[in-house]
Amino acid sequence: MRAEIVTVGTEILLGQIVDTNSSWLARRLADIGVDLLYTTTVGDNMRRMVDVFSCARDRSDAVIVTGGLGPTQDDITREALAEVCGRPLGRDETIAVKIEHIFTSRGREMADSNLRQADVPQGATVIPPQWGTAPGLMVPAWPDGQTPPGRDRGCVFYAVPGVPAEMKEMFERAVAPDLVRRAGTTVTIRSREIKTWGLPESRLAEILSGRFAALESSDNTTLAFLAGEGVVRVRVTVKARDEAEAESLLDAEEALIRELVGDAVFGSGTETIESVCIGLLDAAGLSLAVAESMTGGLVGAWLTRVPGSSAVFRGSAVTYTAEAKTRVLGVPVEILEEHGPVSEPVAAAMATGARQLYGSNVAVAVTGSAGPSTQGSELGEAYLAVDIEGDVEVVRVHFPGDRERVRIFATATVLDLLRRRLQARSPHRAVEPSAEGRP
Amino acid sequence: MRAEIVTVGTEILLGQIVDTNSSWLARRLADIGVDLLYTTTVGDNMRRMVDVFSCARDRSDAVIVTGGLGPTQDDITREALAEVCGRPLGRDETIAVKIEHIFTSRGREMADSNLRQADVPQGATVIPPQWGTAPGLMVPAWPDGQTPPGRDRGCVFYAVPGVPAEMKEMFERAVAPDLVRRAGTTVTIRSREIKTWGLPESRLAEILSGRFAALESSDNTTLAFLAGEGVVRVRVTVKARDEAEAESLLDAEEALIRELVGDAVFGSGTETIESVCIGLLDAAGLSLAVAESMTGGLVGAWLTRVPGSSAVFRGSAVTYTAEAKTRVLGVPVEILEEHGPVSEPVAAAMATGARQLYGSNVAVAVTGSAGPSTQGSELGEAYLAVDIEGDVEVVRVHFPGDRERVRIFATATVLDLLRRRLQARSPHRAVEPSAEGRP
Repeated sequence: MRAEIVTVGTEILLGQIVDTNSSWLARRLADIGVDLLYTTTVGDNMRRMVDVFSCARDRSDAVIVTGGLGPTQDDITREALAEVCGRPLGRDETIAVKIEHIFTSRGREMADSNLRQADVPQGATVIPPQWGTAPGLMVPAWPDGQTPPGRDRGCVFYAVPGVPAEMKEMFERAVAPDLVRRAGTTVTIRSREIKTWGLPESRLAEILSGRFAALESSDNTTLAFLAGEGVVRVRVTVKARDEAEAESLLDAEEALIRELVGDAVFGSGTETIESVCIGLLDAAGLSLAVAESMTGGLVGAWLTRVPGSSAVFRGSAVTYTAEAKTRVLGVPVEILEEHGPVSEPVAAAMATGARQLYGSNVAVAVTGSAGPSTQGSELGEAYLAVDIEGDVEVVRVHFPGDRERVRIFATATVLDLLRRRLQARSPHRAVEPSAEGRP
Repeated sequence: MRAEIVTVGTEILLGQIVDTNSSWLARRLADIGVDLLYTTTVGDNMRRMVDVFSCARDRSDAVIVTGGLGPTQDDITREALAEVCGRPLGRDETIAVKIEHIFTSRGREMADSNLRQADVPQGATVIPPQWGTAPGLMVPAWPDGQTPPGRDRGCVFYAVPGVPAEMKEMFERAVAPDLVRRAGTTVTIRSREIKTWGLPESRLAEILSGRFAALESSDNTTLAFLAGEGVVRVRVTVKARDEAEAESLLDAEEALIRELVGDAVFGSGTETIESVCIGLLDAAGLSLAVAESMTGGLVGAWLTRVPGSSAVFRGSAVTYTAEAKTRVLGVPVEILEEHGPVSEPVAAAMATGARQLYGSNVAVAVTGSAGPSTQGSELGEAYLAVDIEGDVEVVRVHFPGDRERVRIFATATVLDLLRRRLQARSPHRAVEPSAEGRP
C-alpha cells in the first residue's frame, strides 16, 4: 500500500504556520504498516491543486489530503477533487441538516457559505464532523470498481480538515480503519516508545550501542531514537503475525531496555511524566499539592491533563511575587529577605506551605528565574523541592535556553524528582511496564 | 520568481523527525519577495528523487533542495541532480582538500566515503562548507545559457545540507543573494495578522466580504483567513517600494479591519490574548489574581508566558477539589453544597476569594468540567468570572471537544472576557493598533 500526503494551504507556503499534521500522519501510517512515499504542500489555487492531485492519483494507492475543507471561498479542496476524479459536486442534505444543527445548538447564526461544506463529489463517502463543522470525504479516484493498468488496486483520496484536533479524530475514526481494510495486510506492525528524562541522547546511544548492534540482524525488531524538549525516547518497532505476538515482543524489548538504562526511564507508550506521578501517588494513597513561582501554573496544568488526576491532585498555589509567597504560603519574610526568592530555603518553605495549605501528604515547589532577571538570581537558575510527609529535599538546577524552554524543563524536572522519590519507596515499579504503558 | 522546496529524507516520511527547514525557508522566501508554490518531501530513493526533481525543473525557476548531501551511501542528492540536469559528476580537488583539512584540523581520521562530498555536477557552483563537511551546490537545470520555451528564465537547483544550522547559514550566505540577483526584484513584501476571538470563521468572512471584494482589484494588498484552536486571524499582505510604505499600508488596512470587525479583534502581530491583558492591566495600574479549577493552572501559565508579567500578575490559586475551594479561597461550604462546584455562585466566590487572598484589584476565575464527569455538571460546561474591584460578572459557556481542547478554550475565553471588560473602561484602545502589535 503506497500512500502520500497532500497539505493544502497558502499560509504554510508563506511560512506563517508550521505543518505539524504531516509528521503526525507519517508516524501513524508507519504504525499501521502503510508506506508513505511523498508529502506535498500546495497553495489554495485550483490549477496547481488539480496538477498535484492528478500526479498523486497516478502514483499512489491512498492520498491523504489535509486542509481546504472550510466554508470560505478560498477553500476549494472539494472542487479540485471533483474535477480530478470526474465526480461532479452535489449537496448532501443529511450533512447540510447536521451543519445547521451544529450552529443552532450553539446559539449561533449560520452563514450561507457554511452549506458549501455539504457539497460532496458523486459517489464519495462522507465522514461526518464530530467537533468542527467540516465533514471529511473518501473519494475513489477512478470510476467505481476500476483499477488502472499496472496497479494492483485503485486510488482513494481521503480529505480531512487541516485543524489538527479535527484531522486526528477523523483519521483515527474513519481513515485508518479504511486503509487497514484496503491494505488487507496480515503483518502486524506495532511500535512503543520507552521514555527517559535526564540523560543526553549521546549517552543513551552509548548505553544502548550493544543492543543496537545485536538487532542489526533481527528481522522483526528495530530501535530508533527520538528527541525533543529534553525527553529522549527509544522507539521499538516490531513485526509480528498478530497483536498478541507483537505485544509480547514489545514487552520483552522494553524490559531489556529498562534494565540497561535504569531509572532514567520514566515510562512508556502513552505514559507521560505527569501521568506516572499521578499513578504512583494514587497507588500509594497519597495526595499532592504544588507551589509554583516561575512556572506560573504549568506544573498544575500538566498534572491536570491526566484524566482522573482529581483523585490525588488538590491544587497549586501560584505565587508570583514575594508578598504572595508570604500571604498565601506563609513563607517567612525573614527567609525571603535573607536568601532572596530564588533560594533553597524558600523552595523548601513553599513546598511545606503548600502541603499545609491544601492539607495534602505530598507537595512539590518550583522557584526560579525564567528572565527577565529576578533580583539576585541567574537566568535559568531554579530550586526544586519535594516534600513527602514533612521529609523535604531541594535540588538546585540550571537550564539553558529561552523563557519557555526553561519553564518546561523546570516543570518536567520537578515531576521527575517526585517520580524518583516515589519509586524509591516502591523500588520494583521501575522495571515493570504498567498496563497503561501500552499504546 | 517561482520557487519550490524539495526535502530529501526517509526519516521524515517515517515521522521520526519533523521537517522544520521548510517553514523556515518559506518565511525567508516571503521576506525576499520570492513566490513559493510547492514543497515536497521524498525519501532517499533514486527513481523517486529523479521524478520529483524533473517535475520541479519543469514548473519552477528555483528549486531549493535540503538533505541527502552527507557522506553515506544513502545520500544521493548529488547523483540525482547530475542525472536530471544532464551534468556528470566530477571530483572538485579544491573541495576535496578542504574536506580532508576539516578532519585533520579536528584530529579525526577521515573515512574515504567523505570524499564523495567533493563530487560536483559539471558546471555547478560549489558553496563551500562553513560548519559541517557538506558543500552546497548551485546547479543550472538546463544547458548553460538556455531558457526553456514559454519561460522567462531558466531553473537553478540550490542544494544545501539538511542540518538546520548548516542549511540556514548557507541559505543566507549564498542562496538568498543569488535568488535576489536573479529575481531582479526591488519590491518589499510584509504581512501582519489581525487576531480575533469569539466569532466563527464563516461569520468573519461575511463581515469582511465587502473588503475582500474591494481588494480583488488591488495590486498591493491581499487578505486571507487563518484559523486554529479558536483564534481566527486575518492576514494582511502588502507589496511596497520600501519598509516605511509597507508599514503605512499595513497600519491603514489594520485600522479598517478593526473598524469593520469591532471588539472581536483582540490584537495584531505578535500580540496574544494574554499579552494584551497584561498590557491593559499595566496601563490601568491594576494587579491581577486568578482562581482556577478545571484549567489546573493553565490561565496562570499563559499569563506568565509574557515577559514582564510580574508587574501585574500576583498569582493563581488552583483549587481542584471542593475542599480546596473552601480552604484556600474561602468559598462557603453552603454555596458548594447547594449549587455544586460547577456553578455561577461558585465561580463568583472563587474570583472574589482570589482577589482577597492575593490582595489584587482584579481577579478571574474558571470552574468547569473537562471530563471525566464532575458531579452534576455536563462535559465541557464552565462558568467564567471576572471581578474588577468588587464588580463581578459571570458567564456560562459550553465547549465541544476533548479534555485538552476544552481547557484551552476556557483559558482563552476567560482572558478574552477580561480583555473586553478592561477595554470597555478605556474604549479608544480597541481601535488603536499598539506599537507591540507590529511584527
